[in-house]
Amino acid sequence: MNEGARVWLVPDGFIPEESSGSLQSHEAICVLNTSAEEARLSISFYFEDREPVKGVMVVVPPERTRHIRTDGMDGAEIPRGVPYAMRVESSVLVTVQCSRMDTTQPALSLMTAMAYPAEGS
Amino acid sequence: MNEGARVWLVPDGFIPEESSGSLQSHEAICVLNTSAEEARLSISFYFEDREPVKGVMVVVPPERTRHIRTDGMDGAEIPRGVPYAMRVESSVLVTVQCSRMDTTQPALSLMTAMAYPAEGS
Amino acid sequence: MNEGARVWLVPDGFIPEESSGSLQSHEAICVLNTSAEEARLSISFYFEDREPVKGVMVVVPPERTRHIRTDGMDGAEIPRGVPYAMRVESSVLVTVQCSRMDTTQPALSLMTAMAYPAEGS
Amino acid sequence: MNEGARVWLVPDGFIPEESSGSLQSHEAICVLNTSAEEARLSISFYFEDREPVKGVMVVVPPERTRHIRTDGMDGAEIPRGVPYAMRVESSVLVTVQCSRMDTTQPALSLMTAMAYPAEGS
Repeated sequence: MNEGARVWLVPDGFIPEESSGSLQSHEAICVLNTSAEEARLSISFYFEDREPVKGVMVVVPPERTRHIRTDGMDGAEIPRGVPYAMRVESSVLVTVQCSRMDTTQPALSLMTAMAYPAEGS
Repeated sequence: MNEGARVWLVPDGFIPEESSGSLQSHEAICVLNTSAEEARLSISFYFEDREPVKGVMVVVPPERTRHIRTDGMDGAEIPRGVPYAMRVESSVLVTVQCSRMDTTQPALSLMTAMAYPAEGS
Repeated sequence: MNEGARVWLVPDGFIPEESSGSLQSHEAICVLNTSAEEARLSISFYFEDREPVKGVMVVVPPERTRHIRTDGMDGAEIPRGVPYAMRVESSVLVTVQCSRMDTTQPALSLMTAMAYPAEGS
Repeated sequence: MNEGARVWLVPDGFIPEESSGSLQSHEAICVLNTSAEEARLSISFYFEDREPVKGVMVVVPPERTRHIRTDGMDGAEIPRGVPYAMRVESSVLVTVQCSRMDTTQPALSLMTAMAYPAEGS
């Protein structure tokens, strides 16, 4: 199948500094690849006051999903407590959603949004 | 009416293992069929490290909604605590939204996103 | 300005039965009318096992927003604890977002999604 | 890169009156500018029962994100506890997402939605 888009944008990234209970505050870029081909992702991270970190590579096999935590990425260390944003470019059409778990205060909170599909790139 | 799309994608699926209080952690695929015809859905589930489970059938009558819990599906057992993703294909145009309730810690949390409409299929 | 869409769909409606603390569990259909004309909305509610309630009328003045609670509507009584869905049709282009506050357990939870814009009507 | 849209709409704005714990209830308009040019934003705020506040200016440098809290804006004082809505117009293509943190009750809650991209303006 040939579904989704090749470029996805997420303006609201933020990994809370604090955690409580057994679950750690974190964010995940969730990717679904319904195609028969491997999706080679190139992820870029944008900040408020420094140069972006571009070209972090992640692979999603055919007919698989991957939920990629942004606090444990090979090739990019995203600081906690700092606003950031994400851009995901893929070699094949995929779908991208970004979710946050915040356990700063006892009792976790979740939020999620489908990323914005940019047709051009 | 002829509204919505025929294929919908949700990358971030996850049924928390733990629950607390009177409400169980769960996810639901919420479908609205505003047409005058029955919508025959074929739902597929994708994982990180195993083959997808495809073709779980669900019917939504004309002018009805159905909120389909993914932890009690006929024809598919989605494990708790494992990242997954969903693809919903419908015989008529429908609208799909996916929501999670997480009661791992005392005090529930909710998140929701409209699914991504894939024009092709 | 001429912005938004005329028909919007929200599959996941649910007004929790329980509340705790000072805030009541509720849902709101939030509408933004940036045009210079009054928006006359016709809202329909769909259920899992009964006929839809159609044609509840609400007006949003020009250059105004309205956050319409679904638990206090003139012309429709939405039961608590029951899955439902919404369809909003407007006389002019508007933008629609739907949010839920759940205070079933002590410590509220919020979720929100932009409604899905249906081009046809 | 040339990605996103020039006009974005967010119907559900609300800054809770109360806060508890160390984090203050707030909302943020999160903007990602992946272009090589400065994005000059003009933000307007709409209310239920008063005239809109238009033309609040904010700049997002090239290849940067900004997470703009609506409770501390130069040129607009958004009252707490009042429904409002937002419209963001940009000189270049950007992507906009709006998020709320609610700490009214002990244990914070988050919600987020991608804004709605209006092609015309």
